[in-house]
Amino acid sequence: MFTSLDLIGTFVFAISGAVAAHQKKLDLFGIITLAYTTACGGGIIRDVCIGALPPAGLADWRYMALALIAAGLVISAEDLVQKLSHPVLMFDAAGLGFFAVFGAHKALMHSHSIEAAVILGMISAVGGGALRDLLLNRTPVILQREIYASAALLAAALQTGGDILGWPAQWVSWTAIALCFAIRCLSLVFHWNLPRFTKGDD
Amino acid sequence: MFTSLDLIGTFVFAISGAVAAHQKKLDLFGIITLAYTTACGGGIIRDVCIGALPPAGLADWRYMALALIAAGLVISAEDLVQKLSHPVLMFDAAGLGFFAVFGAHKALMHSHSIEAAVILGMISAVGGGALRDLLLNRTPVILQREIYASAALLAAALQTGGDILGWPAQWVSWTAIALCFAIRCLSLVFHWNLPRFTKGDD
Amino acid sequence: MFTSLDLIGTFVFAISGAVAAHQKKLDLFGIITLAYTTACGGGIIRDVCIGALPPAGLADWRYMALALIAAGLVISAEDLVQKLSHPVLMFDAAGLGFFAVFGAHKALMHSHSIEAAVILGMISAVGGGALRDLLLNRTPVILQREIYASAALLAAALQTGGDILGWPAQWVSWTAIALCFAIRCLSLVFHWNLPRFTKGDD
Repeated sequence: MFTSLDLIGTFVFAISGAVAAHQKKLDLFGIITLAYTTACGGGIIRDVCIGALPPAGLADWRYMALALIAAGLVISAEDLVQKLSHPVLMFDAAGLGFFAVFGAHKALMHSHSIEAAVILGMISAVGGGALRDLLLNRTPVILQREIYASAALLAAALQTGGDILGWPAQWVSWTAIALCFAIRCLSLVFHWNLPRFTKGDD
Repeated sequence: MFTSLDLIGTFVFAISGAVAAHQKKLDLFGIITLAYTTACGGGIIRDVCIGALPPAGLADWRYMALALIAAGLVISAEDLVQKLSHPVLMFDAAGLGFFAVFGAHKALMHSHSIEAAVILGMISAVGGGALRDLLLNRTPVILQREIYASAALLAAALQTGGDILGWPAQWVSWTAIALCFAIRCLSLVFHWNLPRFTKGDD
Repeated sequence: MFTSLDLIGTFVFAISGAVAAHQKKLDLFGIITLAYTTACGGGIIRDVCIGALPPAGLADWRYMALALIAAGLVISAEDLVQKLSHPVLMFDAAGLGFFAVFGAHKALMHSHSIEAAVILGMISAVGGGALRDLLLNRTPVILQREIYASAALLAAALQTGGDILGWPAQWVSWTAIALCFAIRCLSLVFHWNLPRFTKGDD
């Protein structure tokens, strides 16, 4: 079950990177690179920061395979991908929670630092998207709008707290993933955003 | 004293990141992220390159706390921050020197490489600002104008030289910090810049 | 011979970074930084991912020296550099193959992961150029056009395959470098590009 969520999350993140690259009219290599970076970039940053080398995204061929499949799908069936944009958002929300929970757990096991676990859990979930935006030469979306990183942060904090306090592992993880998923979906439906602080309207 | 300088430097760098994020109208999460990245990004790059894992900026909760305070201050008291822009430049110059000296020393202890110590000392001081500019989608300021990174490089080189040659530690560090501070302040007052090489005027 | 190729490749990559920085009118520090980042950035990413710390580009003073020479050359003899743009493209193609082969070999020795070796070999060759473009605030060229990263990927894969299967080391390396060089030169002469997938013409 955990492995399935990991692979589904990776695949959905890869789709999001491939779609963004395709819209920017990158070439075949660019689309594959963006798919892979979006899916694995956050985990690679986490693994480098906790010294779990080589990073999982580089050492396990399944991640690259998923990126290739995602790139192929986006190129060959763009219309289908467009139609599936709502389900993709749902899987993305599930992947977000899973990556945050799994990342926080792995970081805590390696670094024994609570703060590192919470922050790296969140970075596992949102770092790939931030790298995608940097490579596409735009300010990362997560810094500008929507409750996205905040949901991941909450899930990472919950998982870390549960690990530290010795709560039953299964329950904590699923609760954190479900909570992140729920917050993310609700924020999409109701257009929740974090406050922005601007003088006057814009 | 050293700890105070470290925390003051971190706080001032966080202010600079929060102000830049606020001007770009990022949301609450974006402002906090930029404050944290600007303050801790250089040190995290250094720690990753010398294998001091997990990086100090991730493992010590005080850095994140300072970033949160800086973000709150910029959001709630923007006018005050604006008025204090001159003192902030002074503290920034002091933080710059301290980060360069401390970073060079830490890198030398871990890597035993003179060149790595000098370069990573400078990166400790200026890397956070470069990441801030990358996330805000602009070419890093330090690559374009002003004597900023050069002052940090000098301080890092002086500290590394002192460490290698066994000069009295206290004296070397404070001299390097003072020199960096003086050069930076003078370059601000007299608008010193490094040469740019352009054909004709622009 | 290997060392010569390494240093020539580094120097040519540094030239390419310095030229790009010069065109963007960065100051002296910016030109040196871009020269160094373009030449050593890919190798530093590789070394961080395989835990070979401190990274070679930071620990060996010759790389920084080459970056300084390249920056000085571009500043003082821009016309000459312009005239030599065709030879530079040739050396760049040779450096590309060498970096990919050497990077893949080093990554395999350290990480014992085939996939990490292939990907990190390619990143050794093209990562510096990608960082150069990120610092100059543009989408990396390698994601957009030309057969460049693909040639590096092929060389890295061939070297990794040869290492795994125990083929004679010298033969494999030179074949991979020559193949990468040939593909790159042919793609320049005949304007080969990877496919881009756009609706309608643009």
